[in-house]
Amino acid sequence: MKRADHDLAFMLRYENIAWYENGAVRILDRRIYPAKTEFVTCRTHFEVAQAITDMVTQSCGPFTAAAAGMALAAHECEGRTEHEQLRYLKEAAYTISHARPTTVSRMERITGGCLAAAEIALREGRSVPDAITEHLIRTNDRRYDRVAQIAVHLVDKIPKDGKVLTQCFGETIVGMMLREAKGRGMALKLFCPETRPYFQGARLTATVCSEMGFDTTVITDNMPAYVMQREKIDVFTCAADAICLDGHVVNKIGTFQIAIAANYLGVPFYVTGVPDKGHPTGDSVRIELRDPDFVLQAMGVRTAAPGVKGYYPSFDVTPPSLITGIVTDLGVYDPQRLRDYLSVTDIGPYEMVI
Amino acid sequence: MKRADHDLAFMLRYENIAWYENGAVRILDRRIYPAKTEFVTCRTHFEVAQAITDMVTQSCGPFTAAAAGMALAAHECEGRTEHEQLRYLKEAAYTISHARPTTVSRMERITGGCLAAAEIALREGRSVPDAITEHLIRTNDRRYDRVAQIAVHLVDKIPKDGKVLTQCFGETIVGMMLREAKGRGMALKLFCPETRPYFQGARLTATVCSEMGFDTTVITDNMPAYVMQREKIDVFTCAADAICLDGHVVNKIGTFQIAIAANYLGVPFYVTGVPDKGHPTGDSVRIELRDPDFVLQAMGVRTAAPGVKGYYPSFDVTPPSLITGIVTDLGVYDPQRLRDYLSVTDIGPYEMVI
Repeated sequence: MKRADHDLAFMLRYENIAWYENGAVRILDRRIYPAKTEFVTCRTHFEVAQAITDMVTQSCGPFTAAAAGMALAAHECEGRTEHEQLRYLKEAAYTISHARPTTVSRMERITGGCLAAAEIALREGRSVPDAITEHLIRTNDRRYDRVAQIAVHLVDKIPKDGKVLTQCFGETIVGMMLREAKGRGMALKLFCPETRPYFQGARLTATVCSEMGFDTTVITDNMPAYVMQREKIDVFTCAADAICLDGHVVNKIGTFQIAIAANYLGVPFYVTGVPDKGHPTGDSVRIELRDPDFVLQAMGVRTAAPGVKGYYPSFDVTPPSLITGIVTDLGVYDPQRLRDYLSVTDIGPYEMVI
Repeated sequence: MKRADHDLAFMLRYENIAWYENGAVRILDRRIYPAKTEFVTCRTHFEVAQAITDMVTQSCGPFTAAAAGMALAAHECEGRTEHEQLRYLKEAAYTISHARPTTVSRMERITGGCLAAAEIALREGRSVPDAITEHLIRTNDRRYDRVAQIAVHLVDKIPKDGKVLTQCFGETIVGMMLREAKGRGMALKLFCPETRPYFQGARLTATVCSEMGFDTTVITDNMPAYVMQREKIDVFTCAADAICLDGHVVNKIGTFQIAIAANYLGVPFYVTGVPDKGHPTGDSVRIELRDPDFVLQAMGVRTAAPGVKGYYPSFDVTPPSLITGIVTDLGVYDPQRLRDYLSVTDIGPYEMVI
């Protein structure tokens, strides 16, 4: 089975991150991209979970990888009784969903959808790996449609030849925002903080922006306030790892700091995505603390002397008071009024939320 | 001639950055320290100026290097007529003072002092290189005394076992602050942002803090707001490249951003140093834009794809409204009232200002 054709071919290029086929899941290794284009090949769903833990893929990548991992798990238990297969898949869903603590709730939507697809396939006597892969394609298609709508509303907020400050790598929305801007003949200038310690901004966001033909500048993570002030940034925007129902936004470490500076300097800050029912409040989010030694190196070269400690919270939480608007597929919402969005949306329980 | 013995032996260890002897100036290469301890050897004062431009030495290093470079210039023109020597030294003073645009005013204090010492030596028929070196030692001694006083006033503002956030590398004040804190039996915890793109915080500040026996944690430059909030930082402090008379502070890029966050989170922010008469207002400071490609690499490894641009302002300007106090040798001043300091100080025209 091949991945579905989609008119958003350019998305696949940047998003071709995880794919199940013939007993293996291949994941684009974003830790080294774009310097090298290499894939990590996982032969079991445990290896997929480990790859997610190890940050082989990032942004929306882990969600696609999770579904591909579920297809692989289905392959692993093929031939067992229906009851055993379902039990095996439920355990796999748990393992994969808990690969990273901050995203358990969103992961459970993905793996839950895969489980539902598996149950139907078992009942109908169809191939379970195929059914899960088809489910992955359908949910991704719906997600693309939704993100395309988000892009329309976001670009409405940017002046024609405006300057946009990004944060980390929301590949789907960044790509769609730029496609939308291009369609409107806008000559945006992008400023991308490099996003330590993985440099996703320098390596990934900036590559997408530049390859799509926009003027793209990488800055270090200590420069956003200066750049907002002196380069007169029009809009600061980022995606989110979780948008809580009370308007708190969980995103890559550094978002909170830029949001404070944007607020101080009067730069509008728009977060793209839709509220996550799994996170009623900002307090409900457990911040993932990753290997502290990882901040003591850069691009594989040690920076600090022996005896010095590191500290690596991967996310931070930005309060609604610092956010101008949450840009959803249905329009821009006041972060304090996100329940209004949920009262009119039709996002199913197993959908990817962005 | 040997460098003067000083009871602050530990300072020399960290500050052993530039020294004139036998027709050469040796400068500790801080771009690679502490991974490697290597010295750049300059055979002419032009090479010294170039080393300052190239960031071989940083923080207070360039000022010591400037004086050492003047001693080297005096060596270069020895044997010429007094008039020719003075003309040569004035040209050297100009070259060295303009090695980096942001610090011209402070550099001119140093080179001006060296010129004055040279004139006296020529009149008295003494060795000019020796006289300049003696001048360097004397001004450094006075600077150490002044910084030791600053350290006393700064440590007064820190709780006994407090958590301190630093920014970049003010080696003299960091060393003296910790010596003072140690003397008082304080068990400070230091958090050092790594300070991209040169990693001075990770490589230099953290090394000093750790070697002096304090609990030291390096964070990336996108973490200060998170760390201030979640780790409950007691004091944010940094030195300055220039403290303007109107209370604006010029310091390493990123200071402005952390100051905004500190202000938002209610964390006191103390800047150490004394006001610089050469900078009446923040507007009078020209921000040095350095090689933009330098932000597209980390520790020598390229981060961004071809076609992506970089941007590298080395400093930013923090307004007095974000600063709790300027910690001088004479006590802590409201940044809006720095002229009060100048009305009582006895800093000579050729002194190093911190």
